[in-house]
Amino acid sequence: MGEKIYVGVDLGGTTIKVGLCDAKGQLLKTYEGDTEAQHGAEHVLSNSAAYVRKLFDQTEYDWDQVEGIGAGIPGFMDIPNGFVKLSPNLGWRNVDVKGTLEAKLGKSVRIDNDANVAALGEAWGGAGAGIDNLICFTLGTGVGGGIIAKGSLIQGFAGMAGELGHLNVVPEDEAISCGCGKKGCLETVSSATGIIYMAKQAVADGAETSLSSLESITAKDVMDAAKLGDQTAIKIVHRAAFYLGRAMALMSVTINPQRFVVGGGVSKAGEYLFQIIDHYYRELAVENSQEGVDIVPAVLSNDAGVVGAAGLHLFG
Amino acid sequence: MGEKIYVGVDLGGTTIKVGLCDAKGQLLKTYEGDTEAQHGAEHVLSNSAAYVRKLFDQTEYDWDQVEGIGAGIPGFMDIPNGFVKLSPNLGWRNVDVKGTLEAKLGKSVRIDNDANVAALGEAWGGAGAGIDNLICFTLGTGVGGGIIAKGSLIQGFAGMAGELGHLNVVPEDEAISCGCGKKGCLETVSSATGIIYMAKQAVADGAETSLSSLESITAKDVMDAAKLGDQTAIKIVHRAAFYLGRAMALMSVTINPQRFVVGGGVSKAGEYLFQIIDHYYRELAVENSQEGVDIVPAVLSNDAGVVGAAGLHLFG
Repeated sequence: MGEKIYVGVDLGGTTIKVGLCDAKGQLLKTYEGDTEAQHGAEHVLSNSAAYVRKLFDQTEYDWDQVEGIGAGIPGFMDIPNGFVKLSPNLGWRNVDVKGTLEAKLGKSVRIDNDANVAALGEAWGGAGAGIDNLICFTLGTGVGGGIIAKGSLIQGFAGMAGELGHLNVVPEDEAISCGCGKKGCLETVSSATGIIYMAKQAVADGAETSLSSLESITAKDVMDAAKLGDQTAIKIVHRAAFYLGRAMALMSVTINPQRFVVGGGVSKAGEYLFQIIDHYYRELAVENSQEGVDIVPAVLSNDAGVVGAAGLHLFG
Repeated sequence: MGEKIYVGVDLGGTTIKVGLCDAKGQLLKTYEGDTEAQHGAEHVLSNSAAYVRKLFDQTEYDWDQVEGIGAGIPGFMDIPNGFVKLSPNLGWRNVDVKGTLEAKLGKSVRIDNDANVAALGEAWGGAGAGIDNLICFTLGTGVGGGIIAKGSLIQGFAGMAGELGHLNVVPEDEAISCGCGKKGCLETVSSATGIIYMAKQAVADGAETSLSSLESITAKDVMDAAKLGDQTAIKIVHRAAFYLGRAMALMSVTINPQRFVVGGGVSKAGEYLFQIIDHYYRELAVENSQEGVDIVPAVLSNDAGVVGAAGLHLFG
């Protein structure tokens, strides 16, 4: 029957990526196809099953080797029952992913949200391999989070664990409103969206900055300007890094992870950004909770989701 | 051989309490003796072993039924190796508790800090029985914390998980210095010490309050005055409850527990205090993360430590 293998489905708004992992979280093979979300949940799940079968058509692995299938999906879910409660990206409400995929593929299916699954991917086969206590932050359009404690993905009573973008870290008097309905959430300052918002504000306020000459501003523009010494951009980058450092300090007395993994588009700013984050984390975290802790970049990039989804049967 | 039983040792600065639990976390029998910390670690651990033997002398249970022994100790510890790194209360530094007690009692020994163990006690046999995702706050001299996720005690990479008294929740401009070396920690405002500090400050600042007539102020005095409508006392209680509510809101997007259990001397203020905490928690927590979540008083009181210590072999 050969070694056990694990199937991951990374179900995004545009693309579905499916992949095979071995028991060590090494990605053996992937296949990608369109999501076609406009045709509804049933169609999207049929596509997912079809892409998994196509993936198998292209490998020497046998379907009998599959231990289970995991799916990472953007939105809120009822994890134990495998339901997606709400996915704005896919336009889904109360979709029985587990039941539908199990019927189509005949294997046990587990689900979790995309940020948790990406964290699990890094923990299993990426920057956290071999580390039992780990937290991932993904700095993209929003800020995603994922927590691995005692080698297991922390999902919470209602699947809301690891929603670290909504840690309230910004004081009231300078808090920005968040999509979640609250103010002062981490993702209002440390996401690409937050960085762009702060840059546009600075330009609108008449700050002297090279960013004011740009037609539209990206988070990368702000990082690049900061690296070149633009004082306004530097202030914005420091603000984004300060609140991420504060969130990490909070996590150090909560989960006390050995490692923080930072991924997503914003993290591409590299060593320059990581040094600033590390500086604020060291300043803010309680001494005993930061000893032996490091902050490293994610390594799996776009594969984290599919690897983590595959890992749900081992660590979910 | 009879049912399996679990031995707990709650090692405090003055008293050592030892107890027996069944597999459901029900406390069957306890024995208490003096710690005699002044005679050093070896003596204290000999006392602990002697009290466990005396406990067995008084029961019909057989030593062969013991699955393992757990010890809850105030301080910082290396949990996997069973070392106490530092315990100011006991005057210990680098004490091999696991090795010493295993040699004396011939059973497997696990250790953890007193706050984590108390949380585990409530989770196993107290206010959280049957709940897999749970957070305890103990509002005493300091603020202790303990996290149960997926039915297991979260201990962290270096035993610093669940140190929730050191969550940074108070904004810089009104932050009070904490014993840990940082400012703005939860325990500076929500512990008995914090409440007394705020009351003394108010009196010193000339606030109109019944507290100014007292020779010394306790946290209970402040609670009682608040219940009678003293505006200064009400403000202090609201401040303590607000920051606890903020800490709970942070935990709801991190661990997403189903229940918060609040114990310790301050919690004795009862329903009056719990309503205020609940109010701020609901206001501050992200909507989806607070659904179905409740906040309840601890029920085991002084037994939480010994029950939780006994539970370390099942959930540690």
